[in-house]
Amino acid sequence: MALSIDLNCDMGESYGAWRMGNDEEVLQYVSSANIACGFHGGDPGTMRRTVAAALAKGVALGAHPSLPDLAGFGRRVMQITPSEAYDMVVYQIGALSAVAASQGARLHHVKAHGALYNMSAKDVALSEAICRAIRDVDASLVLYGLAGSEHIRAAEKIGVQVAQEVFGDRSYQNDGSLTPRSRPGAMIEDLDTAVAQVLRMVTEGKVRSVDGNDVPVKADTLCIHGDQPGALAFAAGIRSALEKAGVAVRTVGATAAEPAA
Amino acid sequence: MALSIDLNCDMGESYGAWRMGNDEEVLQYVSSANIACGFHGGDPGTMRRTVAAALAKGVALGAHPSLPDLAGFGRRVMQITPSEAYDMVVYQIGALSAVAASQGARLHHVKAHGALYNMSAKDVALSEAICRAIRDVDASLVLYGLAGSEHIRAAEKIGVQVAQEVFGDRSYQNDGSLTPRSRPGAMIEDLDTAVAQVLRMVTEGKVRSVDGNDVPVKADTLCIHGDQPGALAFAAGIRSALEKAGVAVRTVGATAAEPAA
Amino acid sequence: MALSIDLNCDMGESYGAWRMGNDEEVLQYVSSANIACGFHGGDPGTMRRTVAAALAKGVALGAHPSLPDLAGFGRRVMQITPSEAYDMVVYQIGALSAVAASQGARLHHVKAHGALYNMSAKDVALSEAICRAIRDVDASLVLYGLAGSEHIRAAEKIGVQVAQEVFGDRSYQNDGSLTPRSRPGAMIEDLDTAVAQVLRMVTEGKVRSVDGNDVPVKADTLCIHGDQPGALAFAAGIRSALEKAGVAVRTVGATAAEPAA
Amino acid sequence: MALSIDLNCDMGESYGAWRMGNDEEVLQYVSSANIACGFHGGDPGTMRRTVAAALAKGVALGAHPSLPDLAGFGRRVMQITPSEAYDMVVYQIGALSAVAASQGARLHHVKAHGALYNMSAKDVALSEAICRAIRDVDASLVLYGLAGSEHIRAAEKIGVQVAQEVFGDRSYQNDGSLTPRSRPGAMIEDLDTAVAQVLRMVTEGKVRSVDGNDVPVKADTLCIHGDQPGALAFAAGIRSALEKAGVAVRTVGATAAEPAA
Repeated sequence: MALSIDLNCDMGESYGAWRMGNDEEVLQYVSSANIACGFHGGDPGTMRRTVAAALAKGVALGAHPSLPDLAGFGRRVMQITPSEAYDMVVYQIGALSAVAASQGARLHHVKAHGALYNMSAKDVALSEAICRAIRDVDASLVLYGLAGSEHIRAAEKIGVQVAQEVFGDRSYQNDGSLTPRSRPGAMIEDLDTAVAQVLRMVTEGKVRSVDGNDVPVKADTLCIHGDQPGALAFAAGIRSALEKAGVAVRTVGATAAEPAA
Repeated sequence: MALSIDLNCDMGESYGAWRMGNDEEVLQYVSSANIACGFHGGDPGTMRRTVAAALAKGVALGAHPSLPDLAGFGRRVMQITPSEAYDMVVYQIGALSAVAASQGARLHHVKAHGALYNMSAKDVALSEAICRAIRDVDASLVLYGLAGSEHIRAAEKIGVQVAQEVFGDRSYQNDGSLTPRSRPGAMIEDLDTAVAQVLRMVTEGKVRSVDGNDVPVKADTLCIHGDQPGALAFAAGIRSALEKAGVAVRTVGATAAEPAA
Repeated sequence: MALSIDLNCDMGESYGAWRMGNDEEVLQYVSSANIACGFHGGDPGTMRRTVAAALAKGVALGAHPSLPDLAGFGRRVMQITPSEAYDMVVYQIGALSAVAASQGARLHHVKAHGALYNMSAKDVALSEAICRAIRDVDASLVLYGLAGSEHIRAAEKIGVQVAQEVFGDRSYQNDGSLTPRSRPGAMIEDLDTAVAQVLRMVTEGKVRSVDGNDVPVKADTLCIHGDQPGALAFAAGIRSALEKAGVAVRTVGATAAEPAA
Repeated sequence: MALSIDLNCDMGESYGAWRMGNDEEVLQYVSSANIACGFHGGDPGTMRRTVAAALAKGVALGAHPSLPDLAGFGRRVMQITPSEAYDMVVYQIGALSAVAASQGARLHHVKAHGALYNMSAKDVALSEAICRAIRDVDASLVLYGLAGSEHIRAAEKIGVQVAQEVFGDRSYQNDGSLTPRSRPGAMIEDLDTAVAQVLRMVTEGKVRSVDGNDVPVKADTLCIHGDQPGALAFAAGIRSALEKAGVAVRTVGATAAEPAA
């Protein structure tokens, strides 16, 4: 079978009069959109416009639920209970599902945002609560989770489809986790290095850690950033390199005959 | 065909640590619940608990979308565009739909809350936007709207099922509208008077206006209040009187064989 | 006495991760800053940074209170009572006063934002409530209000100092009010036309209405916009033209010996 | 010198249409009020009414700043930076100061709410940031902090007056900290036991730990709860017992000639 990978990007993170990101541009390069649902960005009007833009480009729609923290953009850790996590994920999936339904479309996946993503990658109970929320609202939705993390174990336990997410612009530790941003060498800013890392993850299922060891990794979907300087050039470069290498870019679950983008 | 009427009540309007209403008690008397969706009350956990309580009593689930105004409890008029109304109604229906879905249930109706209800009863464009939102998300949902108002005309124009709402504790004007609360005689506080008004609306399709004229009115659903002193006694009294008079209490669209409560 | 005028601009309207405006740049051209206080923009950190930037440029600090409407950026009319207006203005003045105090500074003025500005310009009770709030918190604060509007009458009645605000990029009606934006000719986009209008308002106390009549107007402070394309060039052009014409730019109440900027 | 202690209680925690607590009743028993400032409760109108009620009873006014979390009532830990803590405390002190000023009064103290109180009791950097905020806004304000905690060390380091807070309804550990609520014996529900503990803390400066050891403790102010069943009877009982034992109830810093309540 031909090799393929999904490219996903957070979007719809504007709010009211405030703009964020370059959604229109980045939609050219990705196959999956993680769309903010109002808790860290994404007022209802922005959600409608973002869904329409993604549909126009044939990009798969995903909910991007967050902790309730507009002022902190969902990036601040909050101690919530699994029950609170369940409730807020159900709510946000529902809100975006209705926006999609109003345009004749359905959601494809769910990816937690910011602190909720990071917290649940390490916290079994939180990850399981998020997976139960997904299963209970729409069992056909795919969880996008950090490769090798509690996200993946929780999804398998609860019985939710999962796509393992990898990064081209972040380096990895020996245990397969990302190098914390606070450490030197955490970020990969050189496009060629990033492309090489991504290609090796896709074709060989391995990534070279910062210590020089080969670590197994499953690469179902690659996180693309849209809102930083140089992000669009990076996205274009990654996609172009993947296609040259014969790796198809298509969303998780799509077949070769149904390219998502 | 036997006479029947739906009894609806707003609920799930607590928020976080703050309690409001007597949802458990009032659920004994009504056939439809209008459940707050987070914009004027009803955090995600409250929504989950309210849906569960309504399902346990066999009460039909309705979304109760509001203007975004927690501090004002959705009671302050805001000048929003029809497009903004559409977006916020889609969002809120979706959020509650997912809560219902997570408990294996579906929504039955939509009733706008507070200022959004009052504004759209008089504003064609706003009413039509709300009806379009309902139709686009789930065309099987019933709009609960003020009897004889723009709600009803909009629903008919857009093609959404509608239930005409009447009041037992409010007096009527010659044109079929409610007497504004600021005027003397607006409120009917005597239970017998209220019961008589409701029975006549159901059995004869008429209401006596404050000026003494008979005004035609269609009574599909009756608004029950749950959060004021004496509200429960009033609800119990109305229901008991209706049943004694042979008027079945069941939600809109239910048949005699499927009583809602 | 030498002629002078104040130039004021809204700023500090970023929120959390979202940026708005070019505060640093526009601070070069103005003598008074109207700083958002959290209700339509301006989280506490943004308030601190904006106060520091204004102080560094010697620009007078003003509170810019708004209706509570982040998603609508304070631009949507809300029906609030005078008591609610009083409370929200007290609250927001206080919040910004403390930010100023923490940097060893004091507030100089108050200018209502967006819909609250427009509503109170026409609504006596609302305007008086805002003036009472100002007087009760700090009687030395100056209200910046629309020239010739209820703002001015309320301030005089309540005993609050007032600065009459005029516009260079808006045309005027025969009664001294601004031409509504919905009408043709409302906006003045040509810099020379705007400069000529401002100079005449300052030097002659008159403005030519869209109908060609001369209308008396008092010009204490001129509204400068900072967040639109071309806004900085416009601000620079206005300031330069004023200075060439011998009109000093200084904040309201400052003397020639204490230039504000 | 005669023995004395301050009794403080959180209040003003209603929000919009939602009621919380029995502020009017509990004001009879306390000498200091910690008034919510809008981030976990306390909309601007509630703040105005609460300040007025406290002033009418001669109770000292304190700001009760919180993390920004209405849905969680400020009880959920959030990872904020010291700079964010500084900014949000400045903002909230300012807002309540203006409400007090509008009624001719001044603030007396600051007590952090909920999770912010608990987090800063253990976190030096957070506690120091809060103390710097207090000092920078109004150096005469007293910090109310957990006896023996980082609150006290930070206040002494930054140069802010401090009142050490003790509890009558909570048991203590050998190190002077409160027994976590999750452990048996954490809560003292018997009034006589609570009274005895408080009297000993005030008269001897000691508390018997759950392990039976005497632990030194400084008791400047006692936390009174107002919103739980039996809270008013508890408050009345404590106050009555203190007065019978010759311990004056007055706010921190007040002299015998100026009873606070």
